[in-house]
Amino acid sequence: MNLASYMKDRQALVDRGLNRLLPAARPLKLHRAMRYSLLAGGKRLRPLLLMASAECCGTPAARVLEAACAFECLHTYSLIHDDLPALDNDDLRRGRPTCHKAFDEATAILAGDGLLTFAFELLARCGRRAGDRRALEAVALLARAAGSRGMIGGQTADLEAEGRRLDAAGLSYIHTHKTGDLLTASVECGAVLAGAPPARRAALRDFGRRIGLAFQIADDILNVEGSQAKLGKKVGSDAELRKATYPALFGVEKSKRKARQELQAGLKRLEPFGRAAEPLRALARFVVERDH
Amino acid sequence: MNLASYMKDRQALVDRGLNRLLPAARPLKLHRAMRYSLLAGGKRLRPLLLMASAECCGTPAARVLEAACAFECLHTYSLIHDDLPALDNDDLRRGRPTCHKAFDEATAILAGDGLLTFAFELLARCGRRAGDRRALEAVALLARAAGSRGMIGGQTADLEAEGRRLDAAGLSYIHTHKTGDLLTASVECGAVLAGAPPARRAALRDFGRRIGLAFQIADDILNVEGSQAKLGKKVGSDAELRKATYPALFGVEKSKRKARQELQAGLKRLEPFGRAAEPLRALARFVVERDH
Repeated sequence: MNLASYMKDRQALVDRGLNRLLPAARPLKLHRAMRYSLLAGGKRLRPLLLMASAECCGTPAARVLEAACAFECLHTYSLIHDDLPALDNDDLRRGRPTCHKAFDEATAILAGDGLLTFAFELLARCGRRAGDRRALEAVALLARAAGSRGMIGGQTADLEAEGRRLDAAGLSYIHTHKTGDLLTASVECGAVLAGAPPARRAALRDFGRRIGLAFQIADDILNVEGSQAKLGKKVGSDAELRKATYPALFGVEKSKRKARQELQAGLKRLEPFGRAAEPLRALARFVVERDH
Repeated sequence: MNLASYMKDRQALVDRGLNRLLPAARPLKLHRAMRYSLLAGGKRLRPLLLMASAECCGTPAARVLEAACAFECLHTYSLIHDDLPALDNDDLRRGRPTCHKAFDEATAILAGDGLLTFAFELLARCGRRAGDRRALEAVALLARAAGSRGMIGGQTADLEAEGRRLDAAGLSYIHTHKTGDLLTASVECGAVLAGAPPARRAALRDFGRRIGLAFQIADDILNVEGSQAKLGKKVGSDAELRKATYPALFGVEKSKRKARQELQAGLKRLEPFGRAAEPLRALARFVVERDH
C-alpha cells in the first residue's frame, strides 16, 4: 500500500471534518483561537490511527470521522495548555507562534478548555452512527486516557521532573501517560466504534500501547538529533530544561533498539487482522521511523 | 418542606460522593489540588438542582449522584480557571486562597483540566443505572452547555466586556451563557436521566433557564450590597473592574424586580409536577432570595 497517499487522503478528510464541525460564530475571538491551533496542519496522527483501527475492523474511515476529530481537538487542547507560560512557556509550535503568543494568555486557556469540551460534544454525536453503547464507551475511554490518571497525570509528572534526576520507572510513568494513553485510546476507540470483539479490541489496545511508547522514544531521539526546521520547534530544548528522556537515560543507540522492539511486538499483535491491517502497520512504521 | 434539612442532606450526599469518586493516588499534587478546590464547601447548587429535578420526575437523588458530582466538577474547574492571573486574577475563593495561590499556576491549570475531563468520565458511568441513551444525552447536554457556545463563550464575552460600555443585549449574552447555561443543563440533565417525557423536559429546561438568569441577577446585586465575610470574596470587585452587571445597567430596584419576575415565571412551569416539585421550588426561591 501507498502510505503517503493514504495519509494525504485521510488527513484531508480530517481537515475538512474539523473545519466543518468546529463552530465559527460568536464569540469570534475564541473560535478564531481554537481554529488557529486546530487548523495549523500537523500530522493528524491520532485521527489517522483511530480511522485505520476502525478500517482494520471493517468500518470505513468516514463513519468514525467525528471521533477522529474529537481526538485531534483533545490533542490540540493539550498542546495549547502545555505551551502556556506557566507550563513549558513555548513561543513556537508547528513553526508558528503558539496560541497565547498569537492571541493572549486568557484566550489560550479558554480556547484549550473549549477544544477539550468540544471533543466530548463530538463523541456524543457518534451515537447516531455507532449506537449509544459504543459512543458512551468512547466517551469513557477518552475521559480516562486524557484525565488526571492519564495524559494530565503524565504532564504533571513531566513538569515535576524538570531539573531532577529521574529513574527508568519515573520516565516510564511520564511516557506511558503523557503521550501513550491518548495514542492507545485513539486505536482502541476505533475498535470500539467498529464493534470489535473483545480479543481483537485487546490486541489493538496492546498494539496502541506499544506504538505509543515507540512514538515517544522516537520523539525524544528527534529532540536530540532532529533539525529545527523539520520539527518546527527548538531542538535540544528538552536537554536545556534537563527533562528526562530516553536518550538521556539509556543513550541514543539503546533507545533506537527499544523503539524497534516495541514496533515489532506491536506489529505481531496485528497478524490476526491480515490485509485489513495494512494501513495500521504502515502508520506504525511511520511513527517510529519518521524524521519529524 | 424544610429546605435547610433537604439541602443539608443532599449536600452531604454530594460531598461524600465527590470524596469517594475523585481519584487520590498518583500524581499526588495534582489530585490534592483538584480535591482542594472541589472539597472546599460551596452550596453544591448545580448538583442539588440536578437531583431535585430528577426527584421531581420520580427518580431518587442517589440514583443520579454521579451526574450531580459531574456538574460540580465542571463548575469547580470553571472557577479555578476563572481565578487565574491571566483571567480574573483572584486570590480568594470561598474564603480560602484560590487554587493557583495555594499551589501554583501550572498545577491550577492542570487541576482545572483534570476536573473538566473527570466530569465526562463520571457522566459516562451513568449508563449503568440510567441506560446508555440517557447517559449519552447527558454528555451531549453538558458538553454543549459548558463549551465555547455556552459557558466558555460567556466567560470570553465577560472578559472582553471589562472596561467597556455594554448594552442590555451584550449583558444578556454574558448572563445567559456564563452561568445560565450550566444551571439550565443541570436541571435538564436531571430530567433526562429520569427519563422525563419531552413536554416535562421542556418545562424543566425553561424553569432552569429562568432560575439561571435570576441567580445571576441576584449574584450581581450581592456583589453591590453583600458583605465580604458572607461572600468569601471581595465585595464591589465587579464595579472596580467596571464589569457589566444588572444593577449597573438597570439599577438595584429594577434588577430585584426582574429577578422576582423570572422566579415567578419559572415556578409557573413547575405547576404540572405537583408536590414532587417542592424541593425544586424551594431551591428556586433560595437561589433568588439568598444573602450569600
